[in-house]
Amino acid sequence: MRNRVHNFNAGPAGLPITVLEKAQDEFINYQGLGMSIMEMSHRSTPFDDLMKQVDQDMRQLLNIPDNYNILFLQGGASLQFSMLPMNLLPKNGSADYIVNGVWGQKAAQEAHKLGNVRVVASTEETNFDRLPDLIRADLDPKAAYLHFTSNETIHGNQWPEEPRPLNDVPLVCDMSSDILSRPVDISKYGLIYAGAQKNAGPSGVTIIIIRDDLLEQVPQDLPVMLDYRLQAKKNSMYNTPPSFSIYMLSLVLTWLIDLGGLEEMAMRNARKAGKIYQAIDRSKGFYRGHAKTEHRSLMNVTFGLPSENLENDFVKDATEQGLVGLKGHRSVGGLRASIYNACPIEAVKTLVEFMSKFQGEYG
Amino acid sequence: MRNRVHNFNAGPAGLPITVLEKAQDEFINYQGLGMSIMEMSHRSTPFDDLMKQVDQDMRQLLNIPDNYNILFLQGGASLQFSMLPMNLLPKNGSADYIVNGVWGQKAAQEAHKLGNVRVVASTEETNFDRLPDLIRADLDPKAAYLHFTSNETIHGNQWPEEPRPLNDVPLVCDMSSDILSRPVDISKYGLIYAGAQKNAGPSGVTIIIIRDDLLEQVPQDLPVMLDYRLQAKKNSMYNTPPSFSIYMLSLVLTWLIDLGGLEEMAMRNARKAGKIYQAIDRSKGFYRGHAKTEHRSLMNVTFGLPSENLENDFVKDATEQGLVGLKGHRSVGGLRASIYNACPIEAVKTLVEFMSKFQGEYG
Repeated sequence: MRNRVHNFNAGPAGLPITVLEKAQDEFINYQGLGMSIMEMSHRSTPFDDLMKQVDQDMRQLLNIPDNYNILFLQGGASLQFSMLPMNLLPKNGSADYIVNGVWGQKAAQEAHKLGNVRVVASTEETNFDRLPDLIRADLDPKAAYLHFTSNETIHGNQWPEEPRPLNDVPLVCDMSSDILSRPVDISKYGLIYAGAQKNAGPSGVTIIIIRDDLLEQVPQDLPVMLDYRLQAKKNSMYNTPPSFSIYMLSLVLTWLIDLGGLEEMAMRNARKAGKIYQAIDRSKGFYRGHAKTEHRSLMNVTFGLPSENLENDFVKDATEQGLVGLKGHRSVGGLRASIYNACPIEAVKTLVEFMSKFQGEYG
Repeated sequence: MRNRVHNFNAGPAGLPITVLEKAQDEFINYQGLGMSIMEMSHRSTPFDDLMKQVDQDMRQLLNIPDNYNILFLQGGASLQFSMLPMNLLPKNGSADYIVNGVWGQKAAQEAHKLGNVRVVASTEETNFDRLPDLIRADLDPKAAYLHFTSNETIHGNQWPEEPRPLNDVPLVCDMSSDILSRPVDISKYGLIYAGAQKNAGPSGVTIIIIRDDLLEQVPQDLPVMLDYRLQAKKNSMYNTPPSFSIYMLSLVLTWLIDLGGLEEMAMRNARKAGKIYQAIDRSKGFYRGHAKTEHRSLMNVTFGLPSENLENDFVKDATEQGLVGLKGHRSVGGLRASIYNACPIEAVKTLVEFMSKFQGEYG
């Protein structure tokens, strides 16, 4: 494996080694065409074919109905925090936000700059160690949309299934850190957005899945680059798209299809996360999970040790042994193992062995 | 050269072969760190070092004074068409636009959605075959800024030197298709922006050079991703940057420094363009340049043939001989040879030989 480390980065994150090797192999001469994919006109037939293939593979993997458009834009989820209300929150309307972490909070703050926003449920009080209980949430039956974050990278919580909006309020989801990690019933959603750099590819491309009827609500005269309707009409190529990021995404999609699709991926992800959570739960309190058991993320395992000194030692020793990216986000502290799609079970096994050995030494 | 073609694409365009080879070489294991640059956290030391190096190399190559910030954002020049007025065109102000091609026109149209815009000079009447004469232009001495496009890719015209604004009106330039192709006196500008995918790297990253004092004029409460001041404060890393595109840009900058910098590059570019224009001028009217002689672009050579049929044959024969990307943009027609920094003199010589042979056969 060419001295590759075990990569637990939260994003940008590891990519499948076979994907990297394929990209490396045709890096200078894409499909025998005498140039790199990144040197090619986005108006050329080979690039157009690539865009069509990515659209088709996304539809196949996520079983996306025909009345949804898939866009490939730039700027990450953070730009979507603003594009979303620009496009779908009318001046006289209001949008509901469920906040189960820092990303959901930022989404609500950005939307608030542009229109009326109600935070209808939040678990900030307990540092987002759980998902909010929606039973007593005051959902607006006339909201422009209901927004949630399916997986909170920093705190390590994840919705086992999506919240249900009232009436036909469109459900909107920031799926940046768990898109393509499991099957999703797209028909329950009005709009999904996701930066690619965790489960889907490198940074630089943002995936948007949007239902047809919502495009009709987009106001006139938005800036072209921030207009969902125009981007849909132009097949995400109003201007030059981030070609290479889209190309890498295409290789990841092929890899997912080849390994059996999202059912298989979900099983693998559950198995990987299960191993680490088991190690935590069996450690007699040496390792302490941040998120409540039933709201644990299968993507980001957040946990702590009895002291900050021990946590620092853990990161240091792990890094020396080729286990990288385990330091937790400063707002939660402790440790975090991000185990997205591309993280192989072998890396997880190595980590679990390391955890056991570390506990043996310091526990 | 691994069967590489001669690449005359208008953008995305060819990259230096040594740059591609270096990237390919360390594609899976960047600097021996056991992962690809695109799998690395943007908060890690190696990535931070890369960002600092890019900033430093840009400053060295373009001799950028200390009171300018360099940003690396997403969305291409088209997003800048909107970000610029959002940040620098106050509600009660007005901006002047000089229009010497389709890109300048789009820049003005997008700004017009957000504020008061005056097109102070345009050569649309003659299908942008020349630069406008500014002597009789009604420049606003109180304009928020004066905007121009240094090189118009589609029409093939280029400003030999920048227009001079009145008083201290900040000069703003879309430099997408000639940045880093020649030395520029940055101190004459308030803001420069450029998509990277022509002279500077692959698509997916946009370079912005902005003078300190203009950041102070940015209004409060812009969307974070569209706020120059915030992006400057966060060193272009409010969220995950387009890592791989920035990395490729860094390799191109190193390549430019190694070959002797922008004086040398400008000399090479003038020599390349000179050869093709000479072939046009000596063809006794068989080849017809689109742009007026004194406004010709050194980046995009636009020309036609006596008939559309001949033009189609030209493109077809050239492609068969490994000269690709020569079809002109539909709004001008004819042919276009884009000969950015990375296009080697050998490709230009091959093209000129082909032109001579083609004329011999069909002229």
